[in-house]
Amino acid sequence: MNFADRISFCVQKFGPLLVGLDPHIDYLPRFILEHELEEKGKTWEALAQAVVRTNQKLLDELHDIVGMIKIQMAFYEMLGIPGMLALQSTIEYARSLGYIIILDGKRNDISSTALAYARGYLSTISFPGGQLESFWKVDALTINPYLGEDGIIPFVDEANKTDKGIFVLCRTSNKSAPTIQDVSGPEKVYVKVAKMVETLGEKMIGESGFSSIGIVVGATYPEDLKYLRSNFPSLLFLIPGVGTQQGDIKSLVNAFQGNGLGAIVNVSRDVIFAYREDSNNISGEDFEKKARDRAVYYQEKFWELFR
Amino acid sequence: MNFADRISFCVQKFGPLLVGLDPHIDYLPRFILEHELEEKGKTWEALAQAVVRTNQKLLDELHDIVGMIKIQMAFYEMLGIPGMLALQSTIEYARSLGYIIILDGKRNDISSTALAYARGYLSTISFPGGQLESFWKVDALTINPYLGEDGIIPFVDEANKTDKGIFVLCRTSNKSAPTIQDVSGPEKVYVKVAKMVETLGEKMIGESGFSSIGIVVGATYPEDLKYLRSNFPSLLFLIPGVGTQQGDIKSLVNAFQGNGLGAIVNVSRDVIFAYREDSNNISGEDFEKKARDRAVYYQEKFWELFR
Repeated sequence: MNFADRISFCVQKFGPLLVGLDPHIDYLPRFILEHELEEKGKTWEALAQAVVRTNQKLLDELHDIVGMIKIQMAFYEMLGIPGMLALQSTIEYARSLGYIIILDGKRNDISSTALAYARGYLSTISFPGGQLESFWKVDALTINPYLGEDGIIPFVDEANKTDKGIFVLCRTSNKSAPTIQDVSGPEKVYVKVAKMVETLGEKMIGESGFSSIGIVVGATYPEDLKYLRSNFPSLLFLIPGVGTQQGDIKSLVNAFQGNGLGAIVNVSRDVIFAYREDSNNISGEDFEKKARDRAVYYQEKFWELFR
Repeated sequence: MNFADRISFCVQKFGPLLVGLDPHIDYLPRFILEHELEEKGKTWEALAQAVVRTNQKLLDELHDIVGMIKIQMAFYEMLGIPGMLALQSTIEYARSLGYIIILDGKRNDISSTALAYARGYLSTISFPGGQLESFWKVDALTINPYLGEDGIIPFVDEANKTDKGIFVLCRTSNKSAPTIQDVSGPEKVYVKVAKMVETLGEKMIGESGFSSIGIVVGATYPEDLKYLRSNFPSLLFLIPGVGTQQGDIKSLVNAFQGNGLGAIVNVSRDVIFAYREDSNNISGEDFEKKARDRAVYYQEKFWELFR
């Protein structure tokens, strides 16, 4: 099944919530972090192990109600080699539970370098006398389009070979996004990006009618979301900006096709660290139950959009 | 000394050549790669160790004639954890020999996520009860501006705290670069990026007159190079596109100030894998001597621009 079809299947089964595993160190449940710091000292290993244990509890708790996770690489890379080992074990654990895994690295480069990223995350590394399947076994990768089409094609080609996916940053959710993305001459940059992605993904449209090359569109710009949805029916949207970034859930109705497909909605902190809203819960015991409650809340909110 | 001053000092001492450690597996000297594959089997460890040994020989050979290296992260990430260990040991080895190290990761994100990258590569990670100096000890990082100013500020702030540097992609060297970067409304995207970087870097101008927040400008667009040089005198340029990408050396004269400062010129494959031009040298013995000869050639060619 191609990536877009797997996503559509997953949305029908669980709903469009894409839980973000963005392990901000300051928000990790204290009972986990303190245990690791006591055992391993103030080390990268302690921080990374606290991340792994937090993630595993979340993944265990959520896998019957959430089908997809997005892993933000920055929080793993910043912990050095132990952080990369935490990334590896989080990916492996999530795979073992059947999650679709989107790696949010926003990678970008050209020609043979872009190909190195694409192969490293999505396909196969060849070398004189042999080959190895990609070390990082994920289903999709986010990429950045600033370098233009020849920075995107290598990713599309590798994803196409392996039935994996790509999400290209298009209209991001942050405040300064328009400085670059709305430059218009006469067509806005983000519209150009959407058109480019649409064309490149034409050969990767599955039975669901969606292409495996999607775009990232922030929930914080509802009019743009609406415009993009009506003009690019074959594009899957990955939508950040709900929860902490205050994107409006109701405006998300514009992100979906009438049948409730076509978009996946990322919520990170507001789900995984939901326990922090209760100021009496300093230690974070049962944080995963709070995350579950919040995930259920979001899945229901999203379904309500179509009732 | 701030980053821009260290760069200027280095250019005066050695010349503007920035050698790229982009270890394409297919181009690694065969005598090294085959030895590792025999010893460790067809494994990630064998590939990563071949990269480390190749890099160490290059770094040993070049350190009295080249002051700066650029490490392309894609080639290390694609080798998984062993690749990240190779990155770590390459950085440590280069540091021990006194190189200025620019990590080419083209990272990009917003708010707390951008901060995670910035701290992870340039400053300090804090956590409840302690802090650790960044795991990856480099002097500068490349970043991508597609998300606008609020995707850049966290990097600028951390670089400013630690006297490190940033290079923001502006006008890249690849063929499709104009699709996004030349959208003009009425100002081209890459000009907007240059202005943004100029403003953000105002507080980071050193004695050399340059800011520690520079831009990436491809050698393959000489007119744009000229325009940017005359309009943005305080910006350091990191220039890719010479060598394999066929950028013209003569047109580089437009990248420098009259005193030969203001730009560093990246050459990767054409230096480190110079041995491959001799089709009789299949095994790659003495590849580091060929790299040295080529590095000397480039430093001289660059100096000639000002004679």
